[in-house]
Amino acid sequence: MNLHLAKESVGKAAAALIQSDMLVGLGTGSTAECFITSLIERHRQGLNITAVATSQRSYEQAAAGGIPMRNMTEVLSVDLTVDGADEIDSQKRMIKGGGGALLREKIIASISNEVVIIVDESKLVDQLGTFPLPVEIVPFAYKAIINKIESIGYSGNLRQRDNKNYITDNGNFIFDIHFKQKLTNPEEDQKKIRSIPGVVETGLFFNLANRVLIGCSDGSVKVR
Amino acid sequence: MNLHLAKESVGKAAAALIQSDMLVGLGTGSTAECFITSLIERHRQGLNITAVATSQRSYEQAAAGGIPMRNMTEVLSVDLTVDGADEIDSQKRMIKGGGGALLREKIIASISNEVVIIVDESKLVDQLGTFPLPVEIVPFAYKAIINKIESIGYSGNLRQRDNKNYITDNGNFIFDIHFKQKLTNPEEDQKKIRSIPGVVETGLFFNLANRVLIGCSDGSVKVR
Repeated sequence: MNLHLAKESVGKAAAALIQSDMLVGLGTGSTAECFITSLIERHRQGLNITAVATSQRSYEQAAAGGIPMRNMTEVLSVDLTVDGADEIDSQKRMIKGGGGALLREKIIASISNEVVIIVDESKLVDQLGTFPLPVEIVPFAYKAIINKIESIGYSGNLRQRDNKNYITDNGNFIFDIHFKQKLTNPEEDQKKIRSIPGVVETGLFFNLANRVLIGCSDGSVKVR
Repeated sequence: MNLHLAKESVGKAAAALIQSDMLVGLGTGSTAECFITSLIERHRQGLNITAVATSQRSYEQAAAGGIPMRNMTEVLSVDLTVDGADEIDSQKRMIKGGGGALLREKIIASISNEVVIIVDESKLVDQLGTFPLPVEIVPFAYKAIINKIESIGYSGNLRQRDNKNYITDNGNFIFDIHFKQKLTNPEEDQKKIRSIPGVVETGLFFNLANRVLIGCSDGSVKVR
């Protein structure tokens, strides 16, 4: 499957949705990166926009491309956000945050008037749960927090980078849960995991995706 | 009402509960401070304990008094935690965190085998909601997060210190909700507020207090 062509096509299709004067939310990940590349192109051709980013990486890519960036601390709402997903089911429930930006992605999605999710076909699933679920936890007492998560039946590993604990843009750690089976009731999993003190957020996203654009390996794009 | 005597008495009564070889959780606030003072005294008299703290302040008080402190990153559970409360009702539901340590207080309470709450009589309430509820929020997009909290019917103010936004030990901000009326269903308030992306924790504590010691102005202590 030609994933690169799929990502390019769907990124371009999402960029075509952006209208003049919009405040655009920029997602994180390889598919969002394709969208930002296309958006930079449209901006160079005269599209007047400003943007906010869900990660330092996306911020830098967009700013380097000349898109005027706004600071999230001054923003109350976003017109349209385009972001990827690691898994998405037919009810548009998602696992996100493989790239580690789940908290900022969820905050920006939750304050966006519209969220467009862009994925290649490989991200479509019948049931969530194959992709590990990132859970952002505060570093204080992190072993005890992980112990709590494990005590209610989940297992996984603390994300590492360069032989150190991975640190999010918010200064937290990520515990990646590996499910033993697919999720029959992800809302219940979200409730159980998020209610543990010290869990800041999980990568389970519900009721946040409006449109879904699916990039196919032949370069075509489907809309859901 | 002689609150100081009440706090001293109840702090001393709580310190008397600590047994040799316990890992003790130290709360935060003026009543917890009285407890730590009494605990330092008992430690000097030969009580062998180690401790973890819910705030930098409590850590420093205990360490300066000679109590061997452990780092929370290495701890999986705590034997007994003693902490104060800003309001507590007959079902031992509480508002905590006036001192800004709500997140660490809740994490340590949640991993403690027993939690003893120490209060003076003035903290006992029929219904929670007079004391402002501290809500810890991530600084990223904090205005949008506050806007979300307000959009579901709450109002309050961003906590300030020295004309700047107050910053918690975890690097976050605190939004203090001032309720218009007392809380008839605090569990529902907790659910609604905590489910907002970017809200790390609230000062509503349920099912975490085991024993409650109440210091009276005459120096007596009641147990619930």
